[in-house]
Amino acid sequence: MSRPLHLDPQRFLPADPQVRSIAARLFGAVEALPIVSPHGHTDPRWFSGNEPFDDAVSLLLWPDHYLLRMLMSQGVTLESLGLPPADAPDAAPVATDRRAIWRLFAEHYRVFRATPSRLWLDHVFATVFGLEVRLTPETADHYFDTINAALATREYLPRALYERFGIEVLATTEGALDTLEHHTALAKSGWKGRIITTFRPDDVVDPDRADFVANVLRLGELAHEDTSSWRGYLAALANRRAFFRTLGATATDHGHPTARTADLSPHKAQALFERVLAAKQQPGDAEVFRAQMLTEMAQMSCDDGMVMQLHAGAWRNHNEILFNRFGRDRGGDFPTRTDFTAALKPLLDRFGSRRDFLLILFTLDESTYSRELAPLAGHYPCLKLGPPWWFHDAPEAMLRFRRQSTESAGFYNTVGFNDDTRAFFSIPARHDLARRIDCAYLAELVATHRLDEDEAAEVAVELAYRLAKSAYRL
Amino acid sequence: MSRPLHLDPQRFLPADPQVRSIAARLFGAVEALPIVSPHGHTDPRWFSGNEPFDDAVSLLLWPDHYLLRMLMSQGVTLESLGLPPADAPDAAPVATDRRAIWRLFAEHYRVFRATPSRLWLDHVFATVFGLEVRLTPETADHYFDTINAALATREYLPRALYERFGIEVLATTEGALDTLEHHTALAKSGWKGRIITTFRPDDVVDPDRADFVANVLRLGELAHEDTSSWRGYLAALANRRAFFRTLGATATDHGHPTARTADLSPHKAQALFERVLAAKQQPGDAEVFRAQMLTEMAQMSCDDGMVMQLHAGAWRNHNEILFNRFGRDRGGDFPTRTDFTAALKPLLDRFGSRRDFLLILFTLDESTYSRELAPLAGHYPCLKLGPPWWFHDAPEAMLRFRRQSTESAGFYNTVGFNDDTRAFFSIPARHDLARRIDCAYLAELVATHRLDEDEAAEVAVELAYRLAKSAYRL
Amino acid sequence: MSRPLHLDPQRFLPADPQVRSIAARLFGAVEALPIVSPHGHTDPRWFSGNEPFDDAVSLLLWPDHYLLRMLMSQGVTLESLGLPPADAPDAAPVATDRRAIWRLFAEHYRVFRATPSRLWLDHVFATVFGLEVRLTPETADHYFDTINAALATREYLPRALYERFGIEVLATTEGALDTLEHHTALAKSGWKGRIITTFRPDDVVDPDRADFVANVLRLGELAHEDTSSWRGYLAALANRRAFFRTLGATATDHGHPTARTADLSPHKAQALFERVLAAKQQPGDAEVFRAQMLTEMAQMSCDDGMVMQLHAGAWRNHNEILFNRFGRDRGGDFPTRTDFTAALKPLLDRFGSRRDFLLILFTLDESTYSRELAPLAGHYPCLKLGPPWWFHDAPEAMLRFRRQSTESAGFYNTVGFNDDTRAFFSIPARHDLARRIDCAYLAELVATHRLDEDEAAEVAVELAYRLAKSAYRL
Repeated sequence: MSRPLHLDPQRFLPADPQVRSIAARLFGAVEALPIVSPHGHTDPRWFSGNEPFDDAVSLLLWPDHYLLRMLMSQGVTLESLGLPPADAPDAAPVATDRRAIWRLFAEHYRVFRATPSRLWLDHVFATVFGLEVRLTPETADHYFDTINAALATREYLPRALYERFGIEVLATTEGALDTLEHHTALAKSGWKGRIITTFRPDDVVDPDRADFVANVLRLGELAHEDTSSWRGYLAALANRRAFFRTLGATATDHGHPTARTADLSPHKAQALFERVLAAKQQPGDAEVFRAQMLTEMAQMSCDDGMVMQLHAGAWRNHNEILFNRFGRDRGGDFPTRTDFTAALKPLLDRFGSRRDFLLILFTLDESTYSRELAPLAGHYPCLKLGPPWWFHDAPEAMLRFRRQSTESAGFYNTVGFNDDTRAFFSIPARHDLARRIDCAYLAELVATHRLDEDEAAEVAVELAYRLAKSAYRL
Repeated sequence: MSRPLHLDPQRFLPADPQVRSIAARLFGAVEALPIVSPHGHTDPRWFSGNEPFDDAVSLLLWPDHYLLRMLMSQGVTLESLGLPPADAPDAAPVATDRRAIWRLFAEHYRVFRATPSRLWLDHVFATVFGLEVRLTPETADHYFDTINAALATREYLPRALYERFGIEVLATTEGALDTLEHHTALAKSGWKGRIITTFRPDDVVDPDRADFVANVLRLGELAHEDTSSWRGYLAALANRRAFFRTLGATATDHGHPTARTADLSPHKAQALFERVLAAKQQPGDAEVFRAQMLTEMAQMSCDDGMVMQLHAGAWRNHNEILFNRFGRDRGGDFPTRTDFTAALKPLLDRFGSRRDFLLILFTLDESTYSRELAPLAGHYPCLKLGPPWWFHDAPEAMLRFRRQSTESAGFYNTVGFNDDTRAFFSIPARHDLARRIDCAYLAELVATHRLDEDEAAEVAVELAYRLAKSAYRL
Repeated sequence: MSRPLHLDPQRFLPADPQVRSIAARLFGAVEALPIVSPHGHTDPRWFSGNEPFDDAVSLLLWPDHYLLRMLMSQGVTLESLGLPPADAPDAAPVATDRRAIWRLFAEHYRVFRATPSRLWLDHVFATVFGLEVRLTPETADHYFDTINAALATREYLPRALYERFGIEVLATTEGALDTLEHHTALAKSGWKGRIITTFRPDDVVDPDRADFVANVLRLGELAHEDTSSWRGYLAALANRRAFFRTLGATATDHGHPTARTADLSPHKAQALFERVLAAKQQPGDAEVFRAQMLTEMAQMSCDDGMVMQLHAGAWRNHNEILFNRFGRDRGGDFPTRTDFTAALKPLLDRFGSRRDFLLILFTLDESTYSRELAPLAGHYPCLKLGPPWWFHDAPEAMLRFRRQSTESAGFYNTVGFNDDTRAFFSIPARHDLARRIDCAYLAELVATHRLDEDEAAEVAVELAYRLAKSAYRL
């Protein structure tokens, strides 16, 4: 029953032959452009240590919350995939035979049909590992052996792959308390790959986190500031931003449950900080504090030139039982309805017209594309739109983003593609897919005489390469 | 001016010749599959009595709220269509000449252009009644005579049509207080058709209904339980569920204004029940009671294995004047913005990871497809997505459902098609349309190399037949 | 680097050759139909005075908030475009050289790629001014000279263009306090062009406006009524409506932040009026007053036969700094999430089933098309849907409107196209685009056998011409 695994050279391009030929011409000129990855979650340790990856299961399955969530939806338990719960006492037996786990995954590979996971993985299987048959229960062992054999070779060490993948720059994301030792080691290593960090201060600005107070104290220690005062806390944050910049950071990132911003008087902001730090917060205080901190971060970006990213609207750890047993990032997070027009107004009232400040917006609520995000980005100088995020990093969803945002925001208020992934092996697959979909969209415009082909060719290069470099100041 | 009524063999398939040929191949293999109709509103009396249907107007026009709503929107009154208001004193004259009513309908048939009603009716006219010209004022009499003549023959008796339509199983929907005598008669009749009931307890769980208290009392009588107590009320519901299962029910259905669920302590639930039963409810009590009852019903489904369906988000009887004069289901109901991610959390916290429980979700708010429903169903083992419902049971809307849900939920967290109709004659038309649109979507995936054709062929059969059987445990 | 500016005869029609040929046939029969423009913002003074337009910059750039917003988003200041701020003291230097301003615009013309502004302007450049090369920095001077030379000729006087454009009727929009002297002059002029006014009472029904009380007083003076009383206020409004009707008005228009309506008792309405007029309003009073006034206006429409338009859901002057410095309509307005089903209920409870009353609904929130607007318009006799508005007056957005509204509302609960513009020169471009997109949509229906071509041809004429005339009673 083995079927060929075939990556068609014109995959994801429009079906109509004439439109496809336009798209193919556009894509041909961007296919081989270097990869600029300005936002993602790879582990800098991989590149500083340059040790071989373990095996197919620990590399491709365990860290991928897209795979875990879908497998769980079909009744596959995490224990059966080899992931142990934290609450061991009542735990079911945990699988340990990685070959058997890989076979279980292969048995369920069909459930990923028409999801982006399938498209990314097939690309990895075919282009990175040279596999030529489809993953099925019958080919599971062949896959397991082939992948594991490859991973043991020098050609599959992280730095070799970075180079093979044609990556020009790769941004990781670290918390404000991270000491960045792997980035430091990389900087000293002499390796020419460009791995930069990104400053993500969620753990020190979110009073709803259990470790918030401890984190603020630790922030003070790292920054040699007294973070028990509002002034010292802000100074410590500015200090950490400066430290991150020494290791290449050009951007900050903010993962907030909502896009709410605030612009409190310094006196009120200080009083609020004191309440949340003393764990005397009143209802709503945490939300307002996070809102105020977005505005403070915007101010710091005006001061230090770091690009600000806002990923708003994820309900993290909605599946509390899963979170308590297996921790974060297992697939139990969900989008929520998100407001931007009202939420961002306090910040925009202060910085909206600044031309030296850039705030890149990401949403999980597609209804905001045409109603809020594109109109806002099509007016405020400081705003640009990030690419479709997470659940929407997929062919149909990417087309919806372009179709729903371009007529109000144009192309030049967007910032190119983010792979936003910890799945290092899939980075080329994700950029390949995004470039193909953008060329598909551009070809539609050309075929219906909404854009001339010479212009589309210019835009294709901008979407694939230039806009990310310029927006992220890389 | 008579124009041919022609059902093109490739209708609803994509226009592009290559994609259409793929879709046609896929559809060719599912076109003749038996119809599994796991959720609908046909009248079991038709099949137990097997009497002839009256005439074109009473069969095709009066019960169809899609037709009534559109005709009203164009200024046609229900009185002119022969429907008498309940408030006779001030009523306008009511038409009684059915041929004249049919002519009035024919005069307005053009307003249904590009609506699903038109597609379904043309299918009924052509395939069930053999009509070969389009319905226009000029052909109205021909239609009226042809249809009425056919209805008087044995070939048009309900059981004969059930068999001619290729129905394998047909679920009706009955309230908790229904005595199911027609199902009982059917079970004893020896007829081989499979007509099963579905348990819909809205009338005994919704304190906003004027007859709620009386209904709860009647529930107790039927179940031989004391429904003045919370414990007895729950026991009576479990008892009725068991009774419905003896007449084939495998599923329950819940029509709620919102998807809100609750998980009150038994003590609080009991106190709430006592308040609503004593008509001492406080603001919000009715909503919380309905919310709690969804969770109680989920518990009972875990106990007795019945599949649970939730149809959330309809504002029933928004047109109050219409409701007061003409009663329910005349076309004056509307979708409302619906939340699922927060609303379902209490239920999911208890049953979300159960693999022996299935909750099928339906929405009238398409903005929830990509933002809430597909991500939720793509993670929680107990959740699956019902097909596009009511206003969204239409070609473009079905494509939106697939395009917006598949990338996060895949195919295997959906449950195939529901015709959800009381328009028995249109059941083949509705399944035909749904199968064509699913094949159209699959062909797009194949043509753009997002799915191989052998896989699409397998999925087509699952969407048309197998998923409904397995999800509804038929 | 000059590239040809070519308006393809089949632009905006579907790419598939067979579908395109259907669309081209449909469009061929509507392309030359007269333009009915029942809602817009041109200046009646142009037609009463019939003076030449100044120059390219003051004609095409300054009044176009679509252009200003996009240029600002890219960091171009209004000062550099020649627009002076009101707060002169701290103002940057304001450009005065119009040729230089035009060059600056040309340098940024690329940012409009794939936006409707680009499509409209290219149509104006090619068809109105005969330009044959694309606007680029290199051709900026050629454009500036060509346009300005043309504007100085008799052929480019307002009345000549009205006739050249094939306009049958053109509605402007005036506030309740407008004395309509230009319309009066036009009526006396003997010119055969039909320019009618529209009654827009926002300035006298919105207590949130700083000039509300003064406006109500002025309303009384104009109408010779005592507007310090609720009764006199209503009488004055009725009086002004009658005055507007003498100058051709067949419609009113209402721009409200929400679609909320109310149906207060006369006693409560009077008390509310007295509070807002005395500037003693309580929180929420302004919103309820606007809501009540929509219902009062509906009552007056029942009395005097004027068609009522509701443009709901714009957050005006969101960019307050811009508003304070440069005034209204500079591009700093944004859509907001809008509710209709609940909001309109009070009004619909009174007038929903009236067949002599028409309320045309417009939204900036596309999520309401399939969830609220199409179902409502597909039932209530008094409701119809206006075309896609403002940010959604664009090719993709127009297709979304048809695809998301037609299956529930059909075509006959819509009202054709509105250009809704103050950009007089672009009126033919906007109608051309709308007609092409409607034909594209119809051709898709025909090609997929959802509508026969003879029917589509009839619908195309109705969408392009007849529905606007009948809905607006022109």
